[in-house]
Amino acid sequence: MTSKSLDYENLNENVKKCQYAVRGELYLRASELQKEGKKIIFTNVGNPHALGQKPLTFPRQVVALCQAPFLLDDPNVGLVFPADAIAKAKHYLAMTSGGLGAYSDSRGLPGIRKEVAEFIERRDGYPSDPELIFLTDGASKGVMQILNTIIRGAGDGILVPVPQYPLYSATITLFGGSLVPYYLEETANWGLDIANLRQSVAQARSQGITVRAMVIINPGNPTGQCLSEANLREVLKFCYQNNLVLLGDEVYQQNIYQDERPFISARKVLMDMGPPISKECQLVSFHTVSKGYWGECGQRGGYFEMTNISPKTVEEIYKVASISLSPNVPAQIFMGLMVNPLKPGDISYERYVRESKGILESLRRRAQIMTDGFNSCRNVVCNFTEGAMYSFPQIRLPPKAIEAAKKAGKVADVFYCLKLLEATGISTVPGSGFGQKEGVFHLRTTILPAEEDMPAIMASFKKFNDEFMEQYEDHRGYSRM
Amino acid sequence: MTSKSLDYENLNENVKKCQYAVRGELYLRASELQKEGKKIIFTNVGNPHALGQKPLTFPRQVVALCQAPFLLDDPNVGLVFPADAIAKAKHYLAMTSGGLGAYSDSRGLPGIRKEVAEFIERRDGYPSDPELIFLTDGASKGVMQILNTIIRGAGDGILVPVPQYPLYSATITLFGGSLVPYYLEETANWGLDIANLRQSVAQARSQGITVRAMVIINPGNPTGQCLSEANLREVLKFCYQNNLVLLGDEVYQQNIYQDERPFISARKVLMDMGPPISKECQLVSFHTVSKGYWGECGQRGGYFEMTNISPKTVEEIYKVASISLSPNVPAQIFMGLMVNPLKPGDISYERYVRESKGILESLRRRAQIMTDGFNSCRNVVCNFTEGAMYSFPQIRLPPKAIEAAKKAGKVADVFYCLKLLEATGISTVPGSGFGQKEGVFHLRTTILPAEEDMPAIMASFKKFNDEFMEQYEDHRGYSRM
Repeated sequence: MTSKSLDYENLNENVKKCQYAVRGELYLRASELQKEGKKIIFTNVGNPHALGQKPLTFPRQVVALCQAPFLLDDPNVGLVFPADAIAKAKHYLAMTSGGLGAYSDSRGLPGIRKEVAEFIERRDGYPSDPELIFLTDGASKGVMQILNTIIRGAGDGILVPVPQYPLYSATITLFGGSLVPYYLEETANWGLDIANLRQSVAQARSQGITVRAMVIINPGNPTGQCLSEANLREVLKFCYQNNLVLLGDEVYQQNIYQDERPFISARKVLMDMGPPISKECQLVSFHTVSKGYWGECGQRGGYFEMTNISPKTVEEIYKVASISLSPNVPAQIFMGLMVNPLKPGDISYERYVRESKGILESLRRRAQIMTDGFNSCRNVVCNFTEGAMYSFPQIRLPPKAIEAAKKAGKVADVFYCLKLLEATGISTVPGSGFGQKEGVFHLRTTILPAEEDMPAIMASFKKFNDEFMEQYEDHRGYSRM
Repeated sequence: MTSKSLDYENLNENVKKCQYAVRGELYLRASELQKEGKKIIFTNVGNPHALGQKPLTFPRQVVALCQAPFLLDDPNVGLVFPADAIAKAKHYLAMTSGGLGAYSDSRGLPGIRKEVAEFIERRDGYPSDPELIFLTDGASKGVMQILNTIIRGAGDGILVPVPQYPLYSATITLFGGSLVPYYLEETANWGLDIANLRQSVAQARSQGITVRAMVIINPGNPTGQCLSEANLREVLKFCYQNNLVLLGDEVYQQNIYQDERPFISARKVLMDMGPPISKECQLVSFHTVSKGYWGECGQRGGYFEMTNISPKTVEEIYKVASISLSPNVPAQIFMGLMVNPLKPGDISYERYVRESKGILESLRRRAQIMTDGFNSCRNVVCNFTEGAMYSFPQIRLPPKAIEAAKKAGKVADVFYCLKLLEATGISTVPGSGFGQKEGVFHLRTTILPAEEDMPAIMASFKKFNDEFMEQYEDHRGYSRM
């Protein structure tokens, strides 16, 4: 029998090579266990509503009305929707040509791109051009499109932090490029050291790779750190000197848990630096409605903003976006609502603020409970989550555990996470899915389980970890930090 | 000054090479004219709601309720929503884990994939496996993912009908494969001749290309023909003999305008043929909520179903889908509603049928008005639109017009369509964007303008065409048919 086009051995090799651990072996096993009736706590992916977070009421009211525009003429509409939601629905419907059922421009609705530009200007203090903002079906699709535009072949390198969110490694592999890792310093709270960057670039060049772009994830995923202004300046200078486009993954910009570590956008720092760098250094920044206190993951809304990218390139990106016609329109409205929120005095304002603050403050407390819980285990070390939605503790595994994993044909942290899953139902992602230094092991968990469940989850983790250690510790030592 | 990563000259060449005429030069010019205040009739893209088609009420009610689940507990909800919409919203929300704001499984919600499988079984008379059905953000994204899975490099060829919908040419170029054209026979109402297929494959092979897949668009886009059962059998046999996976773009399966030419799915014909072919021939079929009488383009909902694809390959496709986490969830609900529609006796059934029939019957009449309108021009020949949403008339251009176009640096049909746009505001797509035989010229227009506007639009076209002919005809002859 001849083998067929879609038989495994005949597939695009890049498809086969790419890995995406967030929904990899651990997730698949968790899904199986769930089918068998086990209670699973899905902390593998930043998916707040799946763990019980309620959507903000106001944006949902507005989008519901946009989906059912015939309600706007219903005399009873005021009985179930507040007047400001009705007004906002009219505002957004007027931006469409045919409501939510019509394709928009492939870059997204011009009116919403304008609201995004105004948001960026308020945030950074510098004007932003709606023509350089494209709305996307979630930030991931935007990242994929930009990487596809950059990568010409295996000789093109993209600097990616390690540990990293595997969207980057997977996409670079899928498009046939080369990932050039730079290591974040765990002992410096996952800080970014420019010396490491230089070394990574030098090494890549010695292998004949042209490094063309650099990714930062700020706040960090899975690492949770916020980059300081000084650090961002160094990064931008480095990109400028090395002729790299900076891809700023800033999807967690609303998820900030330490007042002394605010979020600062790469764009603001770039503009602050003034010419020539502010006029020359190429930057693409990404944002989403999936994170923050919105957590509207299932809607798939995002945008990217381009800085110092020539019109000819923007045209090419527009052309490729147009092949799939348009990003989904309902999520574009969510994006508009996120960047242009209610103001004091609006009928729904107080409720909106109460709901948003409730979520953010609870996330802050949960970050603390989780960090403390991990650090209360003698073989676990965990940096505090300054931002984003994750804890990324280092698990020091005894040699016997590493051997046992090897025998089972597993990477040691996969082995550990699988045991954790079977014992407790907690579904995490092993550190090896994000990258880590040789011989060091981590896991990533979201900080998203309901606050009231958190103490029990951490107790359950600790109990598992203690028993695991008892089983595998030979009282001679741990894996090195 | 050194050139930068995202400067035009440094971009991925495949990005630069791909073309997507549906939103190309004509569309961009039309958008400009609109900005300047000219009234534009956007018939360049099958976007029914943008031309005034009203959404079906019931599905919008259900999705609005799913967006605003708090309404389900509101004592007043029954004043604005019918009971069956409320029940359906509960039905679909129960399938999610966290409502519309949570990522679903990367293949889509299992409950909706099951409803799709049941729909396929009812339609074709053969069971369908939900595990082989993936929901997508519109059919285009599904096509792109499957082509990305198949194409390994320039040596891989994909048979594509000419004229074709440029999603195919653009995507094949973007992923670095080779398009292998097979010509549809205009004089046989755009029929598919197997002899042409054989010739195309032989020619590609002589150039060292491995032909790996074949695309059919049924009903045709831009050509509007429905493939007969006998024709589909020949195609499937051809694919089987030549070891090609068949990609069946069946997004217009509800858009049928001639009773004697019903839609028959490639899958049904394949199953009817029995073993070995029914067990061996690989098929991927695509469907969408954007077409039919739904026209919910802006929601971005679609699915693909795989037949005779091994679990190992399905796993790879699942893995790549998971990189962008999940298709948008609201559109998944639209897909559920489309494949599992209201039944006689449901409160909203009559309204639903009235609305659906109204749209379909009007489309049928509009297809007729348009075909007749084009054929009333002495230099225009137009096949009747059996299905889909387009008219694709051949415009016989006089040599003087072709010369004038050449002088203006334009392909002759682009020249004609631009003049049509400037004179009438009718925004079409030149035939060259879809492919056509050398020296023959077409344009594509949707049949979607409001029925009451249709006579005026066709009169306006005829007037333009007459004047154009008067200007360019030298009374010696036309371009050859």
